[in-house]
Amino acid sequence: MAGTPPRSPLAPARFPDLPHISGASFAAVSAGVKYAGRTDVMLARLAPGSTIAGVFTKSATRSAPVLDCQAKIGLDNDAGAAIIVNSGNSNAFTGKNGVDATRAVTSTVAAALDLPESRVYSSSTGVIGEPLPFAKITAKVEELRDALSEDAIQNAAEAIRTTDTFAKGAGAQVEVDGKTVSLAGIAKGSGMIAPDMATMLVYIFTDAKIARADLQAMVSELNVLTFNSITVDSDTSTSDSLLMAATGASGVDVAGNAAFRDALHGLMKDLALQVVRDGEGATKLVEIQVTGALSDEDARTHALSIANSPLVKTAIAGEDPNWGRVVMAIGKSGAAADRDLISISFGDILVADKGWVSPDYREDAGAAYMKNAELAIVVNLGIGKGSATVWTCDLTHGYITINADYRS
Amino acid sequence: MAGTPPRSPLAPARFPDLPHISGASFAAVSAGVKYAGRTDVMLARLAPGSTIAGVFTKSATRSAPVLDCQAKIGLDNDAGAAIIVNSGNSNAFTGKNGVDATRAVTSTVAAALDLPESRVYSSSTGVIGEPLPFAKITAKVEELRDALSEDAIQNAAEAIRTTDTFAKGAGAQVEVDGKTVSLAGIAKGSGMIAPDMATMLVYIFTDAKIARADLQAMVSELNVLTFNSITVDSDTSTSDSLLMAATGASGVDVAGNAAFRDALHGLMKDLALQVVRDGEGATKLVEIQVTGALSDEDARTHALSIANSPLVKTAIAGEDPNWGRVVMAIGKSGAAADRDLISISFGDILVADKGWVSPDYREDAGAAYMKNAELAIVVNLGIGKGSATVWTCDLTHGYITINADYRS
Repeated sequence: MAGTPPRSPLAPARFPDLPHISGASFAAVSAGVKYAGRTDVMLARLAPGSTIAGVFTKSATRSAPVLDCQAKIGLDNDAGAAIIVNSGNSNAFTGKNGVDATRAVTSTVAAALDLPESRVYSSSTGVIGEPLPFAKITAKVEELRDALSEDAIQNAAEAIRTTDTFAKGAGAQVEVDGKTVSLAGIAKGSGMIAPDMATMLVYIFTDAKIARADLQAMVSELNVLTFNSITVDSDTSTSDSLLMAATGASGVDVAGNAAFRDALHGLMKDLALQVVRDGEGATKLVEIQVTGALSDEDARTHALSIANSPLVKTAIAGEDPNWGRVVMAIGKSGAAADRDLISISFGDILVADKGWVSPDYREDAGAAYMKNAELAIVVNLGIGKGSATVWTCDLTHGYITINADYRS
Repeated sequence: MAGTPPRSPLAPARFPDLPHISGASFAAVSAGVKYAGRTDVMLARLAPGSTIAGVFTKSATRSAPVLDCQAKIGLDNDAGAAIIVNSGNSNAFTGKNGVDATRAVTSTVAAALDLPESRVYSSSTGVIGEPLPFAKITAKVEELRDALSEDAIQNAAEAIRTTDTFAKGAGAQVEVDGKTVSLAGIAKGSGMIAPDMATMLVYIFTDAKIARADLQAMVSELNVLTFNSITVDSDTSTSDSLLMAATGASGVDVAGNAAFRDALHGLMKDLALQVVRDGEGATKLVEIQVTGALSDEDARTHALSIANSPLVKTAIAGEDPNWGRVVMAIGKSGAAADRDLISISFGDILVADKGWVSPDYREDAGAAYMKNAELAIVVNLGIGKGSATVWTCDLTHGYITINADYRS
């Protein structure tokens, strides 16, 4: 590891104060999986009656813990549940040994917390292709259990970092039927120093009461609008996992409740943007808004093509209002577009109007806008009603330094 | 423009000696489209009876000259033909003015050479979104005509450069029915300093005799294996064009001739690899070979996913044998793979064997191999008989410098 990179210039000022989630408790320890002098394993325990939902990477080379979570996520069970996460080793591309290591960890947690093994979920993040030293983790499970506390969610957020430059958390409270429902989430993502891979892990907790299938439907739908709408470098991890647990301790049923859904959406978007803000080498946070596409799906294809284009991302790094590269990215995306109907704005500045540079556009106004740390690129394709928004960061020397300058 | 970048370390020692192509003559002039102190327009004249084939970018935001070429390419005509190309301005995203500018150029050439306008093809490469100053080009057409020579193909190659660090040419001669058939080609590609876009233009000439439809079929098929199998940064130009002209002057019919096809394949691969060698900031030329896929198409999807991955490309720049990033790129490609059957070699060094690090692999052997300027990453998916080969370069600080450090 080439030393800890400096805190991202786009990071929030500090970790937020998160509401307690009744029925959810947390602990973190230093198990020495890989890193020295920091915590690297976190445990979360969920009270009996909790429902759990999850979404996972679609990678064809998913890690053993991801496959294990996917096998368990659809099971209903009134027992409590637990989530155990280690950083430092992703237990990916480790064959049969990886399956055995995952089972060793989850079965140890199940025994210590008196849970069925089918209710213990795990994630691992860090180096790939090396055997997970699972005995270092299982040796700490009783210590973790004895330290569980509803006050310790920030400790959990710190323990799951790999090369993140800051711990990521977000919370919300919402009134439903005159009672307060609380939500709190933590995430890690985007940091990587070879030979690690960028991974995103997200854990969200609420004291709301909601059936598993309803929770899963809500999380899956909001995931498309948040974590699946961000990109740092177009590369997809073998470990990406999001787990959400609803303890039901508030006694408030939120199935179909719009206020709860909006609060969860806001929390997920907040965490997703924190991942982009911690993108490797990032100096700009960029929102790409596409409207006027033939369909929402087409709009999303165009938006991701713009967000992933190295030429667009380097132009942003260079504070260059290079709308030609945006046109190029639209053209290559494969979704429908009519060259002579495309309009492009940088923020409120109309740069290209129906296929050619706007007569009112002044290059110095565009250049001044590009100096902002947070930018919007707004595209109207002018051929339909489909829309989508995605978020990305710029591509800088910092990205190359983090990913190329280190030699293993 | 931020000055001419230094000649690529991967460039060939010098421009090759190319065979004369009877029936094809060339000229270049300085028209001052954008650059000062260099040639920027080239004209090629093809003798009556020449057949012409072409392949073009699939971008939905194609430039006016590309659309004009596509409208003309399928027409049979026994008249001669001409190709006129300017650098400095791509006439892309210029609306109705762009169409008029293309017509002004092609009609002037048609009048000067006594050709039907439908037999005059044009390309433009350079800045986008600015009106093409076509009068500067049309004013030079008679001078170009008077300078046409079968000896001037290198001058043509020099005139079509934008930010290429070297002019690109390749030639071949092949015996067919006891007679010699000659081929010569030129290309430009990969250089870009904002606000230009990377573009690839290719012109190939032969004195072979071949019907238009047969020539088109051969060129389209070989294009998939060569120019469509290279990638520098996954971004697709609005101007990419390949034109091939067969003058028939040798009197040798090459329809269905394997030796001619092989010679053309070799020439196209040579030019394609020269474009990768001139990739922005490139210090490594990398061949990605994928075998054992369910189909050739799946193999190509995996190979391009590896070749376009920023994490793979930065690892190569860092001379890091990071096979985990190759696994990641396979996993995200969307094509079929079985994690536990994948094998990966760097050159002849087996790194990962059926899903886990090879027991014989030594990291210092991998690291030593990665110091080579030309590398092969060889993947066997172990699930079928599909295969594909693509070529790419590394992603370095030089790429960021060229594309981000300049401000318009």
